[in-house]
Amino acid sequence: MKLLRVGTAGTERPALLDAEGVLRDLSGIVPDIDGALLADDAALGRIRSAAEAGELPALDAAGLRVGPPLARIGKVVCIGLNYHDHATETGAEPPAEPVIFFKAADTVVGPYDTVLVPRTSEKTDWEVELAVVIGRTARYLGSHEEALAHVAGYAVAHDVSERAFQIERGGTWDKGKNCETFNPLGPWLVTADEVPDPQQLSLRLWVNGELKQDGSTADQIFPVAEVVRYVSQFMTLYPGDVINTGTPAGVAMGQPEPKPFLRAGDVVELEIEGLGRQRQELKDA
Amino acid sequence: MKLLRVGTAGTERPALLDAEGVLRDLSGIVPDIDGALLADDAALGRIRSAAEAGELPALDAAGLRVGPPLARIGKVVCIGLNYHDHATETGAEPPAEPVIFFKAADTVVGPYDTVLVPRTSEKTDWEVELAVVIGRTARYLGSHEEALAHVAGYAVAHDVSERAFQIERGGTWDKGKNCETFNPLGPWLVTADEVPDPQQLSLRLWVNGELKQDGSTADQIFPVAEVVRYVSQFMTLYPGDVINTGTPAGVAMGQPEPKPFLRAGDVVELEIEGLGRQRQELKDA
Repeated sequence: MKLLRVGTAGTERPALLDAEGVLRDLSGIVPDIDGALLADDAALGRIRSAAEAGELPALDAAGLRVGPPLARIGKVVCIGLNYHDHATETGAEPPAEPVIFFKAADTVVGPYDTVLVPRTSEKTDWEVELAVVIGRTARYLGSHEEALAHVAGYAVAHDVSERAFQIERGGTWDKGKNCETFNPLGPWLVTADEVPDPQQLSLRLWVNGELKQDGSTADQIFPVAEVVRYVSQFMTLYPGDVINTGTPAGVAMGQPEPKPFLRAGDVVELEIEGLGRQRQELKDA
Repeated sequence: MKLLRVGTAGTERPALLDAEGVLRDLSGIVPDIDGALLADDAALGRIRSAAEAGELPALDAAGLRVGPPLARIGKVVCIGLNYHDHATETGAEPPAEPVIFFKAADTVVGPYDTVLVPRTSEKTDWEVELAVVIGRTARYLGSHEEALAHVAGYAVAHDVSERAFQIERGGTWDKGKNCETFNPLGPWLVTADEVPDPQQLSLRLWVNGELKQDGSTADQIFPVAEVVRYVSQFMTLYPGDVINTGTPAGVAMGQPEPKPFLRAGDVVELEIEGLGRQRQELKDA
């Protein structure tokens, strides 16, 4: 299923994009799409049954804003340097084990919302990423099979990054990863049953129409199952938590000088095979 | 005012500790203590008036669990190496600007709750910290005065840390800071008007009755006002966000070998002048 949330920011309602591309209202079936829903097989079953029975009212998509596909996101765990080609372009050695950092849940916005270039920013950069959405509480997972059983679904994430804040201001990367609007998510949460192999997805990103990133999750150093298993050794994952699993080569930081960092007026589009497409215009904060 | 939340985990109700040390029920006045309350002067005024008029029913404290003093914590921003004496004991240079890392809000537990030693942990460590609770949305604050006007109050935080996960496993510190139960908070949120100078607070921590940390916020490299101003240049702070402002000297990591890292059965107690006292027993995860 493709689950999403539509409406003005803060008052989104749950919806489903059906196999014919029609937007269907879920607000008669479930209150919202969040961690509680993802952990509730019966509620997910009710959505499935109602969809199959043709009982979900169609919504007019025209003019409807799409929000992030999850309300009340718990935490956003991010994996750094997780593609061989991206590690190479940044000049870093491929890490021996996953590199973890965080984005605050309040950085998450809808897939077509404006992204703000922070004041004093000179190095705002893009990163298309496969986001993994957790559906079951996960502690000390023992195997890759067990790890995948805790995944509710997948979505497109844009891990917007300010490289000077991230790398040149001391301490961890978090300063450059948590600026307001820095994590567009969506348009859909695609349930895991519709993503048979998360290691065979193409990811692409364009800036002002020019293709900048063109990768595949096949190039991930640590695949989704290993990332989920690994993270669960250090922290407990809860339904509604999100893991951004890293970005392939092609970010601005990896280009020759003058590096083409983002400015107000730029338009970024990104997509992952089967998970939909985002589009953001950049504006000054 | 000393605001707190009492009851079993997940069903706490709001309370106030009055000037006579009597616990008062606030559930007739406000639904909970969270970011919305902190941003609502009228609601805070209603609590104040009801308390002064003696209209709040007394609660029997016996057997009542104390939860974290905030429901729905937004994000927990942490400042590393923010005391001169702690920077010295870790062998680090005092940072040129604040070092930022994150704890997930789901690591927050009550002040007397059990702290879990992670499986495979050999270096679980303690850190008493002054937590700043944000009361107003803060972006690009221009002065220290403006920064302090965005602070709703203060609390005791225990920034439990697994040093091997934090330092020896690659990447940022976040792996060692986000284990389950790693951020006891409370017992109270003390409103800012009752903390006239946040740079004149003593902090102390004991392990099994032995004093380990005995510092003062006067030793902070970056005072609270600068921390709040600085963080707001990189990310937006919202009501209900928490900033852990660093720990003074005396952590296990800073002791001679064999370093006395925490084990199941150990008891940690910590207090900050005017903000109350915590006590946790450690158990194996």
